[in-house]
Amino acid sequence: MAVGPILRMPDPLPEPSADKRTAEADVEFAAVTRSLGLVADDLAARGEKAGGEAKDVLDAQALMAQDPTLTDDVEQRIADGATGERAVFEAFAAFQDMLVGMGGYMAERAADLGDVSQRVIASLRGVPAPGVPESDTPFVLVAPDLAPADTALLDLDKVLALITRDGGPTSHTAILARSKSIPAIVGVTGALDLADGTVVVADAATGVVTVDPGADEVAAAEKRIADRLVAAAAPLTDGALADGHAVPLLANLGSPDEAAGAVALGAEGVGLFRTEFLFLGSSTAPTVESQTASYTALLEAFPGKKVVVRALDAGADKPLSFLNDAHEENPALGLRGLRALRVKEQILRDQLTALAAAQAATTADLWVMAPMVSDAEETEYFVALGRELGLKTVGVMAEVPSLAVLADQVFRSADFVSIGTNDLTQYTLAADRMLGSVASYQDPWHPAVLRLVRALGEAGATAGKPVGICGEAAADPLLAVVLVGLGATTLSMTPAALADVRLELSKYTLEQARALAAAAVDASTASGAREAAEAVAV
Amino acid sequence: MAVGPILRMPDPLPEPSADKRTAEADVEFAAVTRSLGLVADDLAARGEKAGGEAKDVLDAQALMAQDPTLTDDVEQRIADGATGERAVFEAFAAFQDMLVGMGGYMAERAADLGDVSQRVIASLRGVPAPGVPESDTPFVLVAPDLAPADTALLDLDKVLALITRDGGPTSHTAILARSKSIPAIVGVTGALDLADGTVVVADAATGVVTVDPGADEVAAAEKRIADRLVAAAAPLTDGALADGHAVPLLANLGSPDEAAGAVALGAEGVGLFRTEFLFLGSSTAPTVESQTASYTALLEAFPGKKVVVRALDAGADKPLSFLNDAHEENPALGLRGLRALRVKEQILRDQLTALAAAQAATTADLWVMAPMVSDAEETEYFVALGRELGLKTVGVMAEVPSLAVLADQVFRSADFVSIGTNDLTQYTLAADRMLGSVASYQDPWHPAVLRLVRALGEAGATAGKPVGICGEAAADPLLAVVLVGLGATTLSMTPAALADVRLELSKYTLEQARALAAAAVDASTASGAREAAEAVAV
Repeated sequence: MAVGPILRMPDPLPEPSADKRTAEADVEFAAVTRSLGLVADDLAARGEKAGGEAKDVLDAQALMAQDPTLTDDVEQRIADGATGERAVFEAFAAFQDMLVGMGGYMAERAADLGDVSQRVIASLRGVPAPGVPESDTPFVLVAPDLAPADTALLDLDKVLALITRDGGPTSHTAILARSKSIPAIVGVTGALDLADGTVVVADAATGVVTVDPGADEVAAAEKRIADRLVAAAAPLTDGALADGHAVPLLANLGSPDEAAGAVALGAEGVGLFRTEFLFLGSSTAPTVESQTASYTALLEAFPGKKVVVRALDAGADKPLSFLNDAHEENPALGLRGLRALRVKEQILRDQLTALAAAQAATTADLWVMAPMVSDAEETEYFVALGRELGLKTVGVMAEVPSLAVLADQVFRSADFVSIGTNDLTQYTLAADRMLGSVASYQDPWHPAVLRLVRALGEAGATAGKPVGICGEAAADPLLAVVLVGLGATTLSMTPAALADVRLELSKYTLEQARALAAAAVDASTASGAREAAEAVAV
Repeated sequence: MAVGPILRMPDPLPEPSADKRTAEADVEFAAVTRSLGLVADDLAARGEKAGGEAKDVLDAQALMAQDPTLTDDVEQRIADGATGERAVFEAFAAFQDMLVGMGGYMAERAADLGDVSQRVIASLRGVPAPGVPESDTPFVLVAPDLAPADTALLDLDKVLALITRDGGPTSHTAILARSKSIPAIVGVTGALDLADGTVVVADAATGVVTVDPGADEVAAAEKRIADRLVAAAAPLTDGALADGHAVPLLANLGSPDEAAGAVALGAEGVGLFRTEFLFLGSSTAPTVESQTASYTALLEAFPGKKVVVRALDAGADKPLSFLNDAHEENPALGLRGLRALRVKEQILRDQLTALAAAQAATTADLWVMAPMVSDAEETEYFVALGRELGLKTVGVMAEVPSLAVLADQVFRSADFVSIGTNDLTQYTLAADRMLGSVASYQDPWHPAVLRLVRALGEAGATAGKPVGICGEAAADPLLAVVLVGLGATTLSMTPAALADVRLELSKYTLEQARALAAAAVDASTASGAREAAEAVAV
């Protein structure tokens, strides 16, 4: 939750005049050539600074700025009498039109090209390039959507909250915002109609944006912000229900650098360590030695504690050239996770070998799990490989509906299951978690998701094996109670959410948590499930 | 199953020589201009003839052939001394390179551009454009993959079977092939290494291609082809198990024109009538009057019989400009089916109004169902709307896993459920049914899918309501028996499969079918389920 004035992403530059140039053609073209070079250098530099996926996008844009076909076209238009600005505008627009005309996918790249055109024209005019606004005072950022290139360079200290017209609740923008404890509300129709400076209350928990709030509403919002600070200031006890039933609270981490921060917020270990950071931005897989060093650094931050590491989850929105080289029409339903690793088994063997070496070198309790596992056969494959390479505790993630449907078979070999509620929800409801128009389906309160969690919880209890939660659902305090009632034995979340979840769990006995779960699972909609749980809540 | 010599899609034309032109520049450019025009006209004409989705692809290609930027580039290259062929080759290749460099999605459109370039160069040379081979004698077509543009104009009388290197078992090529009773085997690695004229046995049931078969193998294949003809020649009795338990056998149709053919093959009605053909290729939805006429024509072909019509299922691979206008990163997980209709409710109201009018005007027993329904709330919405507009029997398709998980809630309002096994499998296994690299997951024998079918069957039996199957699974004779054992009350399939399924069902009592189902559902893999059923089969 946040209160403050909004700033919108600036509007595009006005269209350059079609009047004929007055300067000589070679002078105009020299200026354009210089601006194209400056923009290309700037984009490449921003890419270098941002790294990762954003770097690829920005590098592609830098190439567009220096494409010889486009440059020739600009030169021809200047020779024909256009100004440099107009020639850039028309040449890029003609190319964009062609891309748009070629089909839906092209429209997206056409937007990237439009951004380059805007930057070149801004450079020719000597005005700032459009982009994320800058301000000396804190503000709520309003935008159509935030590209990785925008968020990569965002000054997060100044941003009170993010409001976007597009995007789903588990889009990377939303996840980034949560990991930085910035409230984010996505899919807000009409957000762009607000004027800069309009004060809003942004409540990320309910997804409601209150425009021009009254004094009461501001006071209520400020009280909730203060309450949250109180929860954050509470003692860092281990996670437990009111009756003492332990529910270890773990952290989702993306890099060993984040370990100290998670420990400071009371994380009892790591429930999801994403290993993609080691692989992204490289054309080859890292060596066993360099991976061993990274995993050892992570495990050393958690002596005697549990650390669950997820094997490389490439594919979908995180393609790696050495693992996923084919174009996929629906990458979320493509060759990703364990499927991709099994095709290139040496990459998986190297990673598990490095993990086993780190396990031997430290006192942490290492658990390793595979992403995107479909059934018992794939589970057996991964567990057998992990054991062969010396790992002690090997399990799988429950993200694909089939794995939940076959939970009893899966526990025959898996030491544990960890439920990735984001993907499990996406696939169970067949709704892209990144897509604004189906964002309402991406709700882990949906009773179909809760039933699958219950099936996994029951199968785990029957087998006497742990069932963790490592999706965003565990960060919703009331839902966390329901998940424990459904059989979850541990909860893992972005460290910023630990305090709120710790406080909420402490209010319920296991019997009460089960009553909440039973109420929620009998509902027929996600909102109905939440209301049913709230009606029983203390 | 088919036996015959193969013909491969021809290789691309050799690269034009880089020698300087000897003709005058204006002569060369005039020839190129003429060829660009001929190719554009030819592509547009092929699009017109093919219609539907293929038309969009071909029209886009026709636009590429007449793009002024490309034409200018060709002219410049000729002015600089290149031959016309070389200028076309280089200009298109430069543009293709740029598209490829811009990212994964562009590579696909770059291929379309490459096809245009090939056609223009062929026209300049006066040789046939590359494409589907033509032959006076029947052949087995081998290709990397078949585009809609290829299949649209394929002479199906000459094609014994299709073998492609790419594509999944429920790709549109495979479905087209099945609807025409042409065996198709997709995802065959190494298929392109076969020489033209090599004799193969292509067994679509097992997916095995036998190269240079021995006399025994040819004889066995020919016997099976003959057996199939015998089944096809058997009396057109109503579908039933050996103990007389009725299992109505229905047809999947895509247009009223196919009704007579289905009746001739013994279809007892229609289990899935796809209505997209009325909407595709148009920029607006058809009027209530024109829809009423189409539905009436369909229902009149089935007097007194059951006809299940599916409401418009747009989105994913069948976008409609007036319904789905946004680019989606994962269209299979996008705003499709009932989700899209609910956003533009008037389109749905018009369709249901037209269906109710056709129901009143005929004696057929009309059932109407919605595609891509997620839960009981959406079911209630659709059933209430259908009743309001005068429909008698209203149900939903089970394609989204959540619907199967919540089957008990769904039957509170739905009159029936029809299981779309293709999409249900795709979402349950989170594997794109059109993608070759995950084609092994697209198997409705997978025990997770069978368990969801069982859940739906049990919920239907408890509610005393019918549960049909309308996915491709019903066309697999042994699987059809298993599905009945799991609780399916009707089976709907491509009419070409009716004879084989009718024969197989007649071999089992309901008790035996249930034994097959129990064996299959306890397996842990799709192949294991099939083997378990085969072990119990008669």
